Amino acid sequence: MITKEKIVAFLKTDFPQTKCIVDEVGNRSSTVRHTIGFDELRPGGTVSGPVLMEVADLALYVAILGELGLVSLAVTTNLSINFLRKPTADKDIIGKCSLMKVGKSLVIGEVTLFSSGDEAPVAHVVGTYSIPPVG
Amino acid sequence: MITKEKIVAFLKTDFPQTKCIVDEVGNRSSTVRHTIGFDELRPGGTVSGPVLMEVADLALYVAILGELGLVSLAVTTNLSINFLRKPTADKDIIGKCSLMKVGKSLVIGEVTLFSSGDEAPVAHVVGTYSIPPVG
Amino acid sequence: MITKEKIVAFLKTDFPQTKCIVDEVGNRSSTVRHTIGFDELRPGGTVSGPVLMEVADLALYVAILGELGLVSLAVTTNLSINFLRKPTADKDIIGKCSLMKVGKSLVIGEVTLFSSGDEAPVAHVVGTYSIPPVG
Amino acid sequence: MITKEKIVAFLKTDFPQTKCIVDEVGNRSSTVRHTIGFDELRPGGTVSGPVLMEVADLALYVAILGELGLVSLAVTTNLSINFLRKPTADKDIIGKCSLMKVGKSLVIGEVTLFSSGDEAPVAHVVGTYSIPPVG
Repeated sequence: MITKEKIVAFLKTDFPQTKCIVDEVGNRSSTVRHTIGFDELRPGGTVSGPVLMEVADLALYVAILGELGLVSLAVTTNLSINFLRKPTADKDIIGKCSLMKVGKSLVIGEVTLFSSGDEAPVAHVVGTYSIPPVG
Repeated sequence: MITKEKIVAFLKTDFPQTKCIVDEVGNRSSTVRHTIGFDELRPGGTVSGPVLMEVADLALYVAILGELGLVSLAVTTNLSINFLRKPTADKDIIGKCSLMKVGKSLVIGEVTLFSSGDEAPVAHVVGTYSIPPVG
Repeated sequence: MITKEKIVAFLKTDFPQTKCIVDEVGNRSSTVRHTIGFDELRPGGTVSGPVLMEVADLALYVAILGELGLVSLAVTTNLSINFLRKPTADKDIIGKCSLMKVGKSLVIGEVTLFSSGDEAPVAHVVGTYSIPPVG
Repeated sequence: MITKEKIVAFLKTDFPQTKCIVDEVGNRSSTVRHTIGFDELRPGGTVSGPVLMEVADLALYVAILGELGLVSLAVTTNLSINFLRKPTADKDIIGKCSLMKVGKSLVIGEVTLFSSGDEAPVAHVVGTYSIPPVG
Protein backbone atom coordinates (compact mmCIF):
# COMPACT_ATOMS: atom_id res chain seq x y z
CA MET A 1 0.00 0.00 0.00
CA ILE A 2 1.07 3.52 -0.76
CA THR A 3 2.25 5.59 2.21
CA LYS A 4 1.12 9.03 3.29
CA GLU A 5 4.65 10.30 2.66
CA LYS A 6 4.52 9.22 -1.01
CA ILE A 7 1.16 10.94 -1.48
CA VAL A 8 2.43 14.15 0.14
CA ALA A 9 5.51 14.10 -2.15
CA PHE A 10 3.29 13.43 -5.19
CA LEU A 11 0.97 16.34 -4.38
CA LYS A 12 3.99 18.63 -3.85
CA THR A 13 5.26 18.00 -7.40
CA ASP A 14 2.05 17.30 -9.33
CA PHE A 15 -0.49 19.51 -7.54
CA PRO A 16 1.50 22.40 -5.98
CA GLN A 17 -1.58 24.62 -6.11
CA THR A 18 -3.39 22.83 -3.33
CA LYS A 19 -3.18 24.41 0.12
CA CYS A 20 -4.59 21.31 1.81
CA ILE A 21 -2.50 19.33 4.29
CA VAL A 22 -2.80 15.54 4.40
CA ASP A 23 -3.28 14.32 7.98
CA GLU A 24 -4.08 10.65 7.40
CA VAL A 25 -4.66 8.15 4.60
CA GLY A 26 -5.43 4.43 4.41
CA ASN A 27 -8.24 1.85 4.64
CA ARG A 28 -10.28 3.57 1.94
CA SER A 29 -10.26 6.78 3.94
CA SER A 30 -8.40 10.04 4.44
CA THR A 31 -8.28 13.13 6.63
CA VAL A 32 -7.13 16.46 5.20
CA ARG A 33 -7.13 20.01 6.55
CA HIS A 34 -7.04 23.59 5.21
CA THR A 35 -5.95 26.57 7.28
CA ILE A 36 -8.38 29.48 7.13
CA GLY A 37 -7.41 33.12 6.68
CA PHE A 38 -8.86 36.22 5.04
CA ASP A 39 -8.71 34.66 1.56
CA GLU A 40 -11.03 31.81 2.56
CA LEU A 41 -13.84 33.95 4.00
CA ARG A 42 -17.08 35.26 2.45
CA PRO A 43 -19.81 37.76 3.43
CA GLY A 44 -21.02 36.99 6.95
CA GLY A 45 -17.51 36.27 8.24
CA THR A 46 -17.64 32.56 7.50
CA VAL A 47 -15.64 30.13 5.39
CA SER A 48 -16.65 30.30 1.72
CA GLY A 49 -18.44 27.29 0.23
CA PRO A 50 -15.89 26.70 -2.55
CA VAL A 51 -13.15 26.26 0.09
CA LEU A 52 -15.22 23.49 1.70
CA MET A 53 -15.71 21.89 -1.72
CA GLU A 54 -11.96 22.13 -2.35
CA VAL A 55 -11.18 20.32 0.92
CA ALA A 56 -13.75 17.61 0.11
CA ASP A 57 -12.47 17.16 -3.43
CA LEU A 58 -8.89 16.77 -2.20
CA ALA A 59 -9.93 14.39 0.59
CA LEU A 60 -11.57 12.16 -2.04
CA TYR A 61 -8.50 12.38 -4.29
CA VAL A 62 -6.13 11.46 -1.43
CA ALA A 63 -8.29 8.50 -0.33
CA ILE A 64 -8.29 7.26 -3.96
CA LEU A 65 -4.51 7.66 -4.29
CA GLY A 66 -4.17 5.69 -1.04
CA GLU A 67 -6.35 2.90 -2.39
CA LEU A 68 -5.36 2.74 -6.06
CA GLY A 69 -1.85 4.24 -6.19
CA LEU A 70 -0.71 7.43 -7.90
CA VAL A 71 -3.42 7.62 -10.59
CA SER A 72 -2.84 11.29 -11.26
CA LEU A 73 -5.47 11.50 -13.97
CA ALA A 74 -8.40 10.41 -11.84
CA VAL A 75 -10.96 13.20 -12.30
CA THR A 76 -14.09 14.26 -10.47
CA THR A 77 -17.26 13.60 -12.48
CA ASN A 78 -19.84 14.60 -9.87
CA LEU A 79 -19.77 16.35 -6.53
CA SER A 80 -22.71 17.28 -4.36
CA ILE A 81 -22.42 19.30 -1.15
CA ASN A 82 -24.91 20.11 1.58
CA PHE A 83 -24.07 22.91 4.00
CA LEU A 84 -25.14 22.02 7.53
CA ARG A 85 -23.80 24.69 9.92
CA LYS A 86 -21.82 27.92 9.76
CA PRO A 87 -18.10 27.14 9.99
CA THR A 88 -15.96 29.04 12.50
CA ALA A 89 -13.93 31.74 10.73
CA ASP A 90 -10.70 31.21 12.69
CA LYS A 91 -10.40 27.44 12.80
CA ASP A 92 -8.99 24.96 10.27
CA ILE A 93 -11.44 23.06 8.12
CA ILE A 94 -11.03 19.28 8.46
CA GLY A 95 -12.34 16.84 5.85
CA LYS A 96 -12.82 13.16 6.70
CA CYS A 97 -13.37 10.97 3.64
CA SER A 98 -14.65 7.41 3.43
CA LEU A 99 -14.92 5.61 0.07
CA MET A 100 -18.25 3.82 -0.40
CA LYS A 101 -17.50 2.10 -3.71
CA VAL A 102 -14.20 1.35 -5.40
CA GLY A 103 -15.07 0.07 -8.86
CA LYS A 104 -12.91 -0.41 -11.95
CA SER A 105 -13.94 2.85 -13.55
CA LEU A 106 -15.82 4.76 -10.84
CA VAL A 107 -15.05 5.49 -7.20
CA ILE A 108 -17.72 7.04 -4.95
CA GLY A 109 -17.02 8.46 -1.52
CA GLU A 110 -18.41 10.73 1.14
CA VAL A 111 -16.65 13.49 3.06
CA THR A 112 -17.78 15.05 6.33
CA LEU A 113 -16.35 18.51 6.99
CA PHE A 114 -15.71 20.04 10.41
CA SER A 115 -14.34 23.21 11.95
CA SER A 116 -11.33 21.92 13.89
CA GLY A 117 -12.31 21.02 17.45
CA ASP A 118 -16.08 20.94 16.83
CA GLU A 119 -18.04 17.68 16.74
CA ALA A 120 -20.99 18.92 14.68
CA PRO A 121 -20.21 18.78 10.94
CA VAL A 122 -20.35 22.00 8.87
CA ALA A 123 -20.96 20.26 5.55
CA HIS A 124 -21.35 16.86 3.90
CA VAL A 125 -20.17 15.90 0.41
CA VAL A 126 -20.68 12.93 -1.87
CA GLY A 127 -18.39 12.75 -4.88
CA THR A 128 -17.62 10.46 -7.82
CA TYR A 129 -14.23 10.10 -9.49
CA SER A 130 -13.67 8.51 -12.87
CA ILE A 131 -10.56 6.33 -12.98
CA PRO A 132 -8.72 6.18 -16.33
CA PRO A 133 -8.29 2.67 -17.79
CA VAL A 134 -4.90 1.05 -17.01
CA GLY A 135 -2.30 1.04 -19.81
CA MET B 1 -34.27 46.70 -10.21
CA ILE B 2 -30.73 46.69 -8.93
CA THR B 3 -28.04 47.54 -11.49
CA LYS B 4 -24.91 45.61 -12.37
CA GLU B 5 -22.85 48.57 -11.15
CA LYS B 6 -24.39 48.38 -7.66
CA ILE B 7 -23.71 44.66 -7.47
CA VAL B 8 -20.10 45.14 -8.57
CA ALA B 9 -19.63 47.84 -5.91
CA PHE B 10 -21.26 45.62 -3.28
CA LEU B 11 -18.97 42.68 -4.09
CA LYS B 12 -15.92 44.97 -3.99
CA THR B 13 -16.66 46.02 -0.40
CA ASP B 14 -18.43 42.94 1.02
CA PHE B 15 -16.75 40.09 -0.86
CA PRO B 16 -13.27 41.34 -1.85
CA GLN B 17 -11.96 37.77 -1.90
CA THR B 18 -13.79 36.82 -5.07
CA LYS B 19 -11.77 36.92 -8.28
CA CYS B 20 -14.87 36.60 -10.44
CA ILE B 21 -15.89 39.40 -12.80
CA VAL B 22 -19.58 40.17 -13.33
CA ASP B 23 -20.40 40.40 -17.05
CA GLU B 24 -24.20 40.59 -16.94
CA VAL B 25 -27.11 40.46 -14.51
CA GLY B 26 -30.89 40.73 -14.80
CA ASN B 27 -34.05 38.79 -15.64
CA ARG B 28 -33.32 36.09 -13.09
CA SER B 29 -29.97 35.39 -14.74
CA SER B 30 -26.31 36.32 -14.65
CA THR B 31 -23.03 35.80 -16.50
CA VAL B 32 -19.74 35.85 -14.61
CA ARG B 33 -16.16 34.99 -15.57
CA HIS B 34 -12.90 33.98 -13.89
CA THR B 35 -9.48 34.39 -15.50
CA ILE B 36 -7.36 31.24 -15.38
CA GLY B 37 -3.68 31.12 -14.45
CA PHE B 38 -1.32 28.71 -12.70
CA ASP B 39 -3.23 28.94 -9.40
CA GLU B 40 -6.42 27.62 -10.99
CA LEU B 41 -4.94 24.47 -12.56
CA ARG B 42 -4.75 20.87 -11.34
CA PRO B 43 -2.96 17.66 -12.41
CA GLY B 44 -3.54 17.06 -16.12
CA GLY B 45 -3.14 20.75 -17.00
CA THR B 46 -6.80 21.59 -16.65
CA VAL B 47 -8.88 23.96 -14.55
CA SER B 48 -9.47 22.57 -11.05
CA GLY B 49 -13.00 21.54 -10.10
CA PRO B 50 -13.27 23.88 -7.09
CA VAL B 51 -12.62 26.88 -9.38
CA LEU B 52 -15.60 25.82 -11.50
CA MET B 53 -17.71 25.46 -8.34
CA GLU B 54 -16.58 28.92 -7.23
CA VAL B 55 -17.67 30.48 -10.53
CA ALA B 56 -21.03 28.69 -10.33
CA ASP B 57 -21.60 29.69 -6.72
CA LEU B 58 -20.87 33.34 -7.51
CA ALA B 59 -23.05 33.28 -10.62
CA LEU B 60 -25.96 32.07 -8.46
CA TYR B 61 -25.24 34.73 -5.83
CA VAL B 62 -25.12 37.53 -8.43
CA ALA B 63 -28.37 36.39 -10.08
CA ILE B 64 -30.02 36.37 -6.63
CA LEU B 65 -28.70 39.85 -5.78
CA GLY B 66 -30.06 41.05 -9.13
CA GLU B 67 -33.47 39.59 -8.37
CA LEU B 68 -33.86 40.21 -4.63
CA GLY B 69 -31.53 43.14 -3.90
CA LEU B 70 -28.39 43.20 -1.75
CA VAL B 71 -29.28 40.29 0.57
CA SER B 72 -25.70 39.74 1.66
CA LEU B 73 -26.56 36.92 4.03
CA ALA B 74 -28.09 34.61 1.45
CA VAL B 75 -26.16 31.36 1.84
CA THR B 76 -25.73 28.25 -0.28
CA THR B 77 -27.45 25.20 1.22
CA ASN B 78 -26.84 22.71 -1.57
CA LEU B 79 -24.70 22.63 -4.70
CA SER B 80 -24.30 19.77 -7.13
CA ILE B 81 -21.86 19.81 -10.06
CA ASN B 82 -21.40 17.48 -13.01
CA PHE B 83 -18.18 17.75 -15.00
CA LEU B 84 -18.85 17.33 -18.71
CA ARG B 85 -15.65 18.11 -20.62
CA LYS B 86 -12.05 19.09 -19.87
CA PRO B 87 -11.78 22.89 -19.71
CA THR B 88 -9.07 24.65 -21.71
CA ALA B 89 -6.19 25.67 -19.42
CA ASP B 90 -5.59 29.09 -21.00
CA LYS B 91 -9.11 30.45 -21.44
CA ASP B 92 -11.43 32.22 -19.01
CA ILE B 93 -14.18 30.18 -17.39
CA ILE B 94 -17.63 31.66 -18.04
CA GLY B 95 -20.65 30.83 -15.89
CA LYS B 96 -24.19 31.47 -17.14
CA CYS B 97 -26.83 31.25 -14.42
CA SER B 98 -30.59 30.98 -14.74
CA LEU B 99 -32.82 30.89 -11.65
CA MET B 100 -35.47 28.15 -11.79
CA LYS B 101 -37.35 29.02 -8.61
CA VAL B 102 -37.43 32.22 -6.58
CA GLY B 103 -39.33 31.40 -3.39
CA LYS B 104 -39.64 33.30 -0.13
CA SER B 105 -36.99 31.25 1.65
CA LEU B 106 -35.30 29.19 -1.08
CA VAL B 107 -33.91 30.08 -4.50
CA ILE B 108 -32.86 27.33 -6.91
CA GLY B 109 -30.86 27.93 -10.07
CA GLU B 110 -28.71 26.24 -12.65
CA VAL B 111 -25.36 27.35 -14.04
CA THR B 112 -23.74 26.16 -17.23
CA LEU B 113 -19.97 26.64 -17.36
CA PHE B 114 -17.89 27.17 -20.50
CA SER B 115 -14.30 27.76 -21.53
CA SER B 116 -14.49 31.18 -23.19
CA GLY B 117 -15.13 30.85 -26.91
CA ASP B 118 -16.28 27.21 -26.80
CA GLU B 119 -19.91 26.23 -27.29
CA ALA B 120 -19.78 22.87 -25.51
CA PRO B 121 -20.20 23.27 -21.74
CA VAL B 122 -17.44 22.04 -19.41
CA ALA B 123 -19.69 21.61 -16.38
CA HIS B 124 -23.26 22.02 -15.14
CA VAL B 125 -24.32 23.06 -11.64
CA VAL B 126 -27.60 23.17 -9.76
CA GLY B 127 -27.57 25.09 -6.50
CA THR B 128 -29.93 26.19 -3.73
CA TYR B 129 -29.61 29.36 -1.68
CA SER B 130 -31.42 30.00 1.58
CA ILE B 131 -32.71 33.57 1.87
CA PRO B 132 -32.83 35.06 5.38
CA PRO B 133 -36.26 36.32 6.51
CA VAL B 134 -36.81 40.07 6.00
CA GLY B 135 -36.53 42.29 9.09
CA MET C 1 -31.11 6.08 -35.87
CA ILE C 2 -33.45 4.04 -33.76
CA THR C 3 -37.14 4.94 -34.05
CA LYS C 4 -39.61 5.72 -31.28
CA GLU C 5 -41.60 2.63 -32.31
CA LYS C 6 -38.61 0.34 -31.69
CA ILE C 7 -38.03 1.87 -28.27
CA VAL C 8 -41.70 1.50 -27.33
CA ALA C 9 -41.60 -2.18 -28.40
CA PHE C 10 -38.37 -2.73 -26.46
CA LEU C 11 -39.80 -1.21 -23.28
CA LYS C 12 -42.95 -3.35 -23.66
CA THR C 13 -40.93 -6.57 -23.62
CA ASP C 14 -37.89 -5.66 -21.49
CA PHE C 15 -39.36 -3.16 -19.02
CA PRO C 16 -43.10 -4.00 -18.74
CA GLN C 17 -43.17 -2.51 -15.21
CA THR C 18 -42.88 1.08 -16.39
CA LYS C 19 -46.12 3.03 -16.61
CA CYS C 20 -44.47 5.85 -18.57
CA ILE C 21 -45.56 6.65 -22.11
CA VAL C 22 -42.96 7.74 -24.68
CA ASP C 23 -44.11 10.86 -26.52
CA GLU C 24 -40.95 11.78 -28.44
CA VAL C 25 -37.34 10.72 -28.89
CA GLY C 26 -34.40 11.89 -31.00
CA ASN C 27 -31.61 14.46 -31.22
CA ARG C 28 -30.24 13.55 -27.81
CA SER C 29 -33.60 14.27 -26.21
CA SER C 30 -36.89 12.69 -25.20
CA THR C 31 -40.34 13.50 -23.86
CA VAL C 32 -42.19 11.00 -21.68
CA ARG C 33 -45.37 11.20 -19.63
CA HIS C 34 -47.00 9.42 -16.68
CA THR C 35 -50.71 9.54 -15.93
CA ILE C 36 -51.52 10.42 -12.33
CA GLY C 37 -54.09 8.68 -10.17
CA PHE C 38 -54.53 7.80 -6.49
CA ASP C 39 -51.45 5.55 -6.47
CA GLU C 40 -49.16 8.43 -7.45
CA LEU C 41 -50.24 10.87 -4.73
CA ARG C 42 -48.78 11.66 -1.30
CA PRO C 43 -49.86 13.65 1.80
CA GLY C 44 -50.95 17.13 0.74
CA GLY C 45 -52.77 15.86 -2.36
CA THR C 46 -49.81 16.21 -4.66
CA VAL C 47 -47.77 13.89 -6.86
CA SER C 48 -45.21 11.92 -4.83
CA GLY C 49 -41.52 12.68 -5.34
CA PRO C 50 -40.55 9.13 -6.34
CA VAL C 51 -43.05 9.28 -9.23
CA LEU C 52 -41.27 12.39 -10.53
CA MET C 53 -37.91 10.63 -10.17
CA GLU C 54 -39.32 7.63 -12.05
CA VAL C 55 -40.43 9.83 -14.96
CA ALA C 56 -37.02 11.54 -15.04
CA ASP C 57 -35.13 8.26 -14.89
CA LEU C 58 -37.16 6.84 -17.78
CA ALA C 59 -36.81 10.03 -19.83
CA LEU C 60 -33.01 9.73 -19.49
CA TYR C 61 -33.12 6.03 -20.41
CA VAL C 62 -35.26 6.69 -23.49
CA ALA C 63 -33.02 9.53 -24.68
CA ILE C 64 -29.99 7.22 -24.28
CA LEU C 65 -31.68 4.38 -26.18
CA GLY C 66 -32.50 6.88 -28.93
CA GLU C 67 -28.88 7.98 -29.13
CA LEU C 68 -26.95 4.75 -28.55
CA GLY C 69 -29.41 1.99 -29.57
CA LEU C 70 -30.99 -0.68 -27.36
CA VAL C 71 -28.31 -0.82 -24.64
CA SER C 72 -30.62 -2.46 -22.13
CA LEU C 73 -27.97 -2.69 -19.43
CA ALA C 74 -27.27 1.01 -19.20
CA VAL C 75 -27.74 1.79 -15.49
CA THR C 76 -28.21 4.96 -13.49
CA THR C 77 -25.19 5.79 -11.33
CA ASN C 78 -26.32 9.15 -9.97
CA LEU C 79 -29.56 11.11 -9.95
CA SER C 80 -30.22 14.43 -8.27
CA ILE C 81 -33.64 16.07 -8.14
CA ASN C 82 -34.76 19.53 -7.03
CA PHE C 83 -38.46 20.08 -6.38
CA LEU C 84 -39.54 23.50 -7.63
CA ARG C 85 -43.35 23.75 -7.39
CA LYS C 86 -46.27 21.61 -6.23
CA PRO C 87 -47.49 19.45 -9.13
CA THR C 88 -51.20 19.40 -9.96
CA ALA C 89 -52.81 16.21 -8.64
CA ASP C 90 -55.03 15.56 -11.65
CA LYS C 91 -52.71 16.24 -14.59
CA ASP C 92 -50.13 14.03 -16.29
CA ILE C 93 -46.50 14.55 -15.40
CA ILE C 94 -44.37 15.32 -18.46
CA GLY C 95 -40.58 14.86 -18.48
CA LYS C 96 -38.44 16.58 -21.10
CA CYS C 97 -34.88 15.23 -21.25
CA SER C 98 -31.82 16.70 -22.93
CA LEU C 99 -28.47 14.89 -22.87
CA MET C 100 -25.54 17.16 -21.95
CA LYS C 101 -22.72 14.67 -22.46
CA VAL C 102 -22.62 11.42 -24.41
CA GLY C 103 -19.29 9.80 -23.56
CA LYS C 104 -18.03 6.26 -24.12
CA SER C 105 -18.80 5.11 -20.62
CA LEU C 106 -20.90 7.88 -19.06
CA VAL C 107 -23.94 9.81 -20.30
CA ILE C 108 -25.17 12.87 -18.39
CA GLY C 109 -28.51 14.53 -19.01
CA GLU C 110 -31.02 16.88 -17.48
CA VAL C 111 -34.80 16.48 -17.26
CA THR C 112 -37.32 19.22 -16.63
CA LEU C 113 -40.66 17.99 -15.26
CA PHE C 114 -44.03 19.67 -15.77
CA SER C 115 -47.68 19.18 -14.89
CA SER C 116 -49.28 18.84 -18.32
CA GLY C 117 -50.43 22.22 -19.62
CA ASP C 118 -48.37 24.31 -17.19
CA GLU C 119 -45.29 26.23 -18.28
CA ALA C 120 -43.59 26.47 -14.89
CA PRO C 121 -41.57 23.33 -14.13
CA VAL C 122 -42.41 21.26 -11.02
CA ALA C 123 -38.98 19.67 -10.72
CA HIS C 124 -35.53 19.48 -12.32
CA VAL C 125 -33.29 16.42 -12.48
CA VAL C 126 -29.70 15.77 -13.47
CA GLY C 127 -28.74 12.13 -13.92
CA THR C 128 -25.76 10.02 -14.99
CA TYR C 129 -25.98 6.64 -16.70
CA SER C 130 -23.10 4.20 -16.99
CA ILE C 131 -22.92 2.52 -20.38
CA PRO C 132 -21.58 -1.06 -20.44
CA PRO C 133 -18.54 -1.64 -22.71
CA VAL C 134 -19.40 -2.95 -26.18
CA GLY C 135 -18.84 -6.70 -26.78
CA MET D 1 -41.34 11.73 21.73
CA ILE D 2 -43.62 10.24 19.14
CA THR D 3 -43.79 6.43 19.02
CA LYS D 4 -43.32 4.13 16.05
CA GLU D 5 -46.93 2.97 16.50
CA LYS D 6 -48.27 6.54 16.06
CA ILE D 7 -46.18 7.01 12.92
CA VAL D 8 -47.40 3.71 11.46
CA ALA D 9 -51.02 4.70 12.17
CA PHE D 10 -50.44 8.14 10.63
CA LEU D 11 -48.96 6.66 7.45
CA LYS D 12 -51.86 4.21 7.19
CA THR D 13 -54.42 7.03 7.11
CA ASP D 14 -52.47 9.89 5.49
CA PHE D 15 -50.14 8.05 3.12
CA PRO D 16 -51.89 4.73 2.27
CA GLN D 17 -50.02 4.60 -1.07
CA THR D 18 -46.67 3.76 0.47
CA LYS D 19 -45.67 0.09 0.47
CA CYS D 20 -42.81 0.71 2.90
CA ILE D 21 -42.82 -0.89 6.32
CA VAL D 22 -41.42 1.04 9.30
CA ASP D 23 -38.97 -1.12 11.29
CA GLU D 24 -37.52 1.45 13.70
CA VAL D 25 -37.65 5.16 14.48
CA GLY D 26 -36.04 7.42 17.07
CA ASN D 27 -32.86 9.36 17.91
CA ARG D 28 -32.92 11.26 14.63
CA SER D 29 -32.90 8.00 12.69
CA SER D 30 -35.17 5.41 11.12
CA THR D 31 -35.11 2.01 9.42
CA VAL D 32 -37.70 1.15 6.78
CA ARG D 33 -38.09 -1.74 4.34
CA HIS D 34 -39.83 -2.51 1.05
CA THR D 35 -40.59 -6.02 -0.16
CA ILE D 36 -39.48 -6.67 -3.73
CA GLY D 37 -41.54 -8.44 -6.38
CA PHE D 38 -42.01 -8.26 -10.14
CA ASP D 39 -43.34 -4.69 -9.98
CA GLU D 40 -40.12 -3.40 -8.43
CA LEU D 41 -37.71 -4.84 -11.02
CA ARG D 42 -36.13 -3.31 -14.14
CA PRO D 43 -34.10 -4.59 -17.13
CA GLY D 44 -31.21 -6.71 -15.87
CA GLY D 45 -33.30 -8.40 -13.18
CA THR D 46 -32.49 -5.88 -10.51
CA VAL D 47 -34.46 -3.50 -8.30
CA SER D 48 -35.41 -0.32 -10.16
CA GLY D 49 -33.77 2.92 -9.09
CA PRO D 50 -37.03 4.76 -8.33
CA VAL D 51 -37.93 2.04 -5.78
CA LEU D 52 -34.66 2.75 -3.97
CA MET D 53 -35.41 6.49 -4.07
CA GLU D 54 -38.89 5.79 -2.68
CA VAL D 55 -37.47 3.83 0.26
CA ALA D 56 -34.94 6.60 0.96
CA ASP D 57 -37.57 9.34 0.74
CA LEU D 58 -39.83 7.51 3.18
CA ALA D 59 -36.97 6.75 5.57
CA LEU D 60 -36.21 10.49 5.68
CA TYR D 61 -39.91 11.33 6.21
CA VAL D 62 -40.24 8.80 9.04
CA ALA D 63 -37.08 10.02 10.79
CA ILE D 64 -38.44 13.60 10.57
CA LEU D 65 -41.86 12.57 11.94
CA GLY D 66 -40.05 10.84 14.81
CA GLU D 67 -38.06 13.97 15.56
CA LEU D 68 -40.58 16.76 14.92
CA GLY D 69 -43.98 15.09 15.34
CA LEU D 70 -46.68 14.54 12.69
CA VAL D 71 -45.73 17.41 10.34
CA SER D 72 -47.58 15.91 7.40
CA LEU D 73 -46.75 18.77 5.06
CA ALA D 74 -42.99 18.43 5.28
CA VAL D 75 -41.89 18.12 1.64
CA THR D 76 -38.72 17.00 -0.08
CA THR D 77 -36.85 19.88 -1.73
CA ASN D 78 -33.74 18.00 -2.89
CA LEU D 79 -32.73 14.36 -3.13
CA SER D 80 -29.51 12.98 -4.55
CA ILE D 81 -28.81 9.27 -4.96
CA ASN D 82 -25.67 7.35 -5.86
CA PHE D 83 -26.03 3.73 -6.92
CA LEU D 84 -23.21 1.62 -5.51
CA ARG D 85 -23.95 -2.06 -6.22
CA LYS D 86 -26.62 -4.16 -7.96
CA PRO D 87 -29.37 -5.00 -5.46
CA THR D 88 -30.49 -8.62 -5.14
CA ALA D 89 -33.80 -9.15 -6.97
CA ASP D 90 -35.40 -11.39 -4.34
CA LYS D 91 -34.52 -9.64 -1.09
CA ASP D 92 -36.18 -6.75 0.72
CA ILE D 93 -34.61 -3.32 0.36
CA ILE D 94 -33.72 -1.81 3.74
CA GLY D 95 -33.17 1.95 4.20
CA LYS D 96 -31.31 3.26 7.26
CA CYS D 97 -31.68 7.00 7.73
CA SER D 98 -29.69 9.35 9.93
CA LEU D 99 -30.54 13.07 10.13
CA MET D 100 -27.47 15.33 9.83
CA LYS D 101 -29.17 18.67 10.46
CA VAL D 102 -32.51 19.47 12.07
CA GLY D 103 -33.07 23.18 11.52
CA LYS D 104 -36.19 25.32 11.89
CA SER D 105 -37.04 25.26 8.21
CA LEU D 106 -34.73 22.63 6.67
CA VAL D 107 -33.86 19.08 7.69
CA ILE D 108 -31.00 17.23 5.94
CA GLY D 109 -30.37 13.52 6.29
CA GLU D 110 -28.59 10.60 4.68
CA VAL D 111 -29.94 7.14 3.93
CA THR D 112 -27.90 4.02 3.24
CA LEU D 113 -29.77 1.32 1.33
CA PHE D 114 -29.12 -2.42 1.56
CA SER D 115 -30.44 -5.68 0.16
CA SER D 116 -31.65 -7.47 3.31
CA GLY D 117 -28.87 -9.62 4.77
CA ASP D 118 -26.02 -7.99 2.84
CA GLU D 119 -23.51 -5.69 4.52
CA ALA D 120 -22.38 -3.80 1.42
CA PRO D 121 -24.76 -0.92 0.63
CA VAL D 122 -26.54 -0.84 -2.75
CA ALA D 123 -27.12 2.93 -2.76
CA HIS D 124 -26.61 6.11 -0.75
CA VAL D 125 -28.97 9.07 -0.60
CA VAL D 126 -28.77 12.59 0.80
CA GLY D 127 -32.05 14.47 1.00
CA THR D 128 -33.43 17.79 2.22
CA TYR D 129 -36.93 18.36 3.55
CA SER D 130 -38.56 21.75 3.97
CA ILE D 131 -40.57 22.05 7.18
CA PRO D 132 -43.65 24.32 7.05
CA PRO D 133 -43.70 27.16 9.62
CA VAL D 134 -45.65 26.38 12.81
CA GLY D 135 -49.15 27.91 13.10
